[in-house]
Amino acid sequence: MPTHQFSPSHYHPTLATHDPVLRIAEGDSVVTSTLCAHGYDAAGAHVAEMGNPMTGPFHVEGAEPGDALEVTIDSIVPNREYGWARTIIAPNVLDPDFLAVSQPADDQLLASWRIDNRAGTATLVQPADTSIGSISLPLAPMIGCLGVAPPLGQAISTATSGEHGGNMDYRGFAAGTTVYFPVFVPGALFHLGDCHALQSDGEIGGTGVEISCDVQFTVRICGDTNAHWPGGEDQNYIFTVGNARPLDQALQHATTEMLRRLQWQFGLDAGGARILMGQCVEYDVGNIFDPAYTMVCKIAKRVLKSAVS
Amino acid sequence: MPTHQFSPSHYHPTLATHDPVLRIAEGDSVVTSTLCAHGYDAAGAHVAEMGNPMTGPFHVEGAEPGDALEVTIDSIVPNREYGWARTIIAPNVLDPDFLAVSQPADDQLLASWRIDNRAGTATLVQPADTSIGSISLPLAPMIGCLGVAPPLGQAISTATSGEHGGNMDYRGFAAGTTVYFPVFVPGALFHLGDCHALQSDGEIGGTGVEISCDVQFTVRICGDTNAHWPGGEDQNYIFTVGNARPLDQALQHATTEMLRRLQWQFGLDAGGARILMGQCVEYDVGNIFDPAYTMVCKIAKRVLKSAVS
Amino acid sequence: MPTHQFSPSHYHPTLATHDPVLRIAEGDSVVTSTLCAHGYDAAGAHVAEMGNPMTGPFHVEGAEPGDALEVTIDSIVPNREYGWARTIIAPNVLDPDFLAVSQPADDQLLASWRIDNRAGTATLVQPADTSIGSISLPLAPMIGCLGVAPPLGQAISTATSGEHGGNMDYRGFAAGTTVYFPVFVPGALFHLGDCHALQSDGEIGGTGVEISCDVQFTVRICGDTNAHWPGGEDQNYIFTVGNARPLDQALQHATTEMLRRLQWQFGLDAGGARILMGQCVEYDVGNIFDPAYTMVCKIAKRVLKSAVS
Amino acid sequence: MPTHQFSPSHYHPTLATHDPVLRIAEGDSVVTSTLCAHGYDAAGAHVAEMGNPMTGPFHVEGAEPGDALEVTIDSIVPNREYGWARTIIAPNVLDPDFLAVSQPADDQLLASWRIDNRAGTATLVQPADTSIGSISLPLAPMIGCLGVAPPLGQAISTATSGEHGGNMDYRGFAAGTTVYFPVFVPGALFHLGDCHALQSDGEIGGTGVEISCDVQFTVRICGDTNAHWPGGEDQNYIFTVGNARPLDQALQHATTEMLRRLQWQFGLDAGGARILMGQCVEYDVGNIFDPAYTMVCKIAKRVLKSAVS
Repeated sequence: MPTHQFSPSHYHPTLATHDPVLRIAEGDSVVTSTLCAHGYDAAGAHVAEMGNPMTGPFHVEGAEPGDALEVTIDSIVPNREYGWARTIIAPNVLDPDFLAVSQPADDQLLASWRIDNRAGTATLVQPADTSIGSISLPLAPMIGCLGVAPPLGQAISTATSGEHGGNMDYRGFAAGTTVYFPVFVPGALFHLGDCHALQSDGEIGGTGVEISCDVQFTVRICGDTNAHWPGGEDQNYIFTVGNARPLDQALQHATTEMLRRLQWQFGLDAGGARILMGQCVEYDVGNIFDPAYTMVCKIAKRVLKSAVS
Repeated sequence: MPTHQFSPSHYHPTLATHDPVLRIAEGDSVVTSTLCAHGYDAAGAHVAEMGNPMTGPFHVEGAEPGDALEVTIDSIVPNREYGWARTIIAPNVLDPDFLAVSQPADDQLLASWRIDNRAGTATLVQPADTSIGSISLPLAPMIGCLGVAPPLGQAISTATSGEHGGNMDYRGFAAGTTVYFPVFVPGALFHLGDCHALQSDGEIGGTGVEISCDVQFTVRICGDTNAHWPGGEDQNYIFTVGNARPLDQALQHATTEMLRRLQWQFGLDAGGARILMGQCVEYDVGNIFDPAYTMVCKIAKRVLKSAVS
Repeated sequence: MPTHQFSPSHYHPTLATHDPVLRIAEGDSVVTSTLCAHGYDAAGAHVAEMGNPMTGPFHVEGAEPGDALEVTIDSIVPNREYGWARTIIAPNVLDPDFLAVSQPADDQLLASWRIDNRAGTATLVQPADTSIGSISLPLAPMIGCLGVAPPLGQAISTATSGEHGGNMDYRGFAAGTTVYFPVFVPGALFHLGDCHALQSDGEIGGTGVEISCDVQFTVRICGDTNAHWPGGEDQNYIFTVGNARPLDQALQHATTEMLRRLQWQFGLDAGGARILMGQCVEYDVGNIFDPAYTMVCKIAKRVLKSAVS
Repeated sequence: MPTHQFSPSHYHPTLATHDPVLRIAEGDSVVTSTLCAHGYDAAGAHVAEMGNPMTGPFHVEGAEPGDALEVTIDSIVPNREYGWARTIIAPNVLDPDFLAVSQPADDQLLASWRIDNRAGTATLVQPADTSIGSISLPLAPMIGCLGVAPPLGQAISTATSGEHGGNMDYRGFAAGTTVYFPVFVPGALFHLGDCHALQSDGEIGGTGVEISCDVQFTVRICGDTNAHWPGGEDQNYIFTVGNARPLDQALQHATTEMLRRLQWQFGLDAGGARILMGQCVEYDVGNIFDPAYTMVCKIAKRVLKSAVS
């Protein structure tokens, strides 16, 4: 299968039916790059407006509404030496009463982190005067915002998410993970950007360590699916994603999608799927900063294997 | 330190300032037993009304309002051969539109699981006719409902949770975990019950595999704390707990408590605590079935170690 | 029917199965008084701890679980010259981002309002230096917290609400309104307190104009009801009440209760009740400050009349 | 000022920076028509896809980002004899547990209502076999979906709402009301559609009585505003609008906007605005069916008058 080298020349602030930047086929891989959330590239040049400018969209020949587009994340490598992050915790994840008495003075400041791909670390450079000094944390690169064109001619900001994907900020969107999206327009129109060198669950600062990256991905088309929401799998789990506010509703979407998926994809009956989920699902928290939050519902592959054998 | 053997003769449907069943001292351990959520004991006798009858309360000499009561869960061992579970997924965790078209016919049925402590498995016995057959899953015993007497003379149902703890249904309340609770009344008055042989995150069926258990725990008093909510630690993480609806608010409580705790207990400054949390917190989902949901905010001990060194 | 004069000598911080202060019969009226939320009486004496100390409970002879207790509010008259109120807007009803940048400096201050029953006005006395000067607003006295003993031996703080009523802070609980509550314990055990001279929808400051009052009420027992939640009627509307967080869930409870009530009490079929509600329900917002919020679902009596004729 | 007669020839499923259908000036009026939510016109012809096809957009010369566009609704007149409505109550406004046991069999059916503008009534025609028979209700025509083009090149479905307006389904958007919107693009680009002959608060059936209408409106530009959200006034109230899920967040937006508006538009200081709001705001519930809910915060003009005098 061919591997396309694609160097972007423009970026989008929405996921939409934009003109495709490249037409690729089932099984193809793409090597490309993403800007950081503020629109800076590998050379530190400011080449797009903030926030979360998208690389793409990539038109996948033959993908039609009703299909699912499967994207395997082959690799994510930070391509410059410095990432940045907000230094506060987002007001919406703290108690309103607590906020009212303890607002930080430094809420406009950005932290700076030095990225060392060889050592596999991100090291805090600025601010240098807090009690955690120049702490080093392991790199865990991931894609913050990825998805397809939404239906109805909608153009949806990269500041939020929905059935089409978008700014989900899930730590699990890392190298080795395969993600799928329901297809709403011919060619699916895959967008990606907003990579992080690392982040907390929930991206509770409102950013991870924001960084431009080199990314490789590979696409496939799955026909005859019943996917309503994004989903996927990694080495140990299958997962489904719900995007909504409040978190309760995101969880309802992800849980409902898992209940459907265990039936249409893995052949369980409804009774078996319910009993299995009732004892075995796990949840991960994606973005809890945006207008729509993200919740991920997972089942371990070893559990699934014993259920479908 | 002494280890008390305590065999309960009555149980409570609330966490409250009930007469203590035993007075114990700092450092003491207690070996006792809990009923299943429906009030059945090790011998299968129905000895208390459903749901979630509590063993206790245990009065810890010297615990005063303003302290925290620390409880180490030493062991949890199922003490009968059969556990039960609901076979449906709770309506509140599924999409309302999905519910409206696909309500299961079997919503009143209970599943039966055979517990084998030696093999470390729970095996589905009834229903026998679903696609998952007689699946076996690893035992992961935990305490569903535990906590102290709430303030103001309140008596709070074991069907919900709050600052005092209660029915949090968190998989992390397992052997080896230490949990603490803010103390609201003299003696703290520790209650426990509703153990599960295993459960999903969220206890999304509305039950785990419900079972009576033999439990050993050890208590300590922490003076001079600033704990507003339950918290604790296990081998790899420290954690804080928030209990509320919606899940967003439970998450706010847990996150705010972690931000406070990193400062009062671990000596970080506010700026350092915020930066660390912004890149490193993780979340676990506890109960999402009760009037109050449970969210757990965690920091890995290895991260914390590099931050406070 | 007899009218009892009852002068309270003690007050409760919870709605619970407390010893009754008076036993009354179906059809009886009671003239009594309530403290302000901080526990001050008509003479300005501090006679109970804050917050929302309850007068009662009153045992209604013959009321049994499964019945509903109907309470007509005959009159509410402020019985001292000054009421107080918080001067801030509660953090939980403002945008988290807004809070973070504009926290008022005066968040601990209380306003003082002069009450003139003859003129029917509340006039702002302190603070005197804001742009609204010494504004006068019409009195609209109401009962903030009222309800019955909850089930299971629970004792529930007057800071919140539930199926049993409690701190609902609904402007509609005014003279002329009849409220009913499901009965959970023999005698129902009616509590009341926390009257306001006036308040906004939602009690968004966290208080109304808090004042001690003389209150007269009359009780009746309704057998054979299907009430799950408080409800009632005033001159123009029938209404049902839901208490929960978030507001969405309070609204679900109130709406579901109205759908049931139109059937069991007014004889509509399900299809007719759904169509009628779909075009005609109105909602009022009660308390949006407490752990549980309050939403009221209403149907105009003139609409109902044309539906059941 | 000129009054434009505009007869639409195409419609949009999104509010977006579409090509304007007409350019109008400050002070101009427009007489036009809207389709019903399913895309049927006055003659009963199906001329656009469901749901909520928009008439417009109208470009208002001189409106620039940072301004507010003020739209006075001069008249709304149903222009055909039959409206339709769903016969169920939306699953998301009923208790999940209730839904699970009592799903109506007729959830796909639509009711038919006969509209009589002269008598001012809507009369139920189909289904004819419920207990409410052929009930007649007063007409109360309103615009369900109206707003301006959103920022960032977004195209937002008419199934939801946001800062730009959209599908708010508020009963107050009736003849005589003036609504304003923050302007995000040159010309503002005003869209409207989805009129109802009447509806409940919340549009809890998922529809009102859906009908095509003749609508007249008049536009003005307000420079130098601080409007973040839609707002407006009618005869008795000024109001602000918040659109989000859950309802709590919609309420936060509307309340915050009112606190700002009392200061920038009416000259109150923050302290006075907070005290006034704390005793005087009222809330109305708009749409509670869509991905974003709508809450309206109001202050009576007589109250405001006494505060600013």
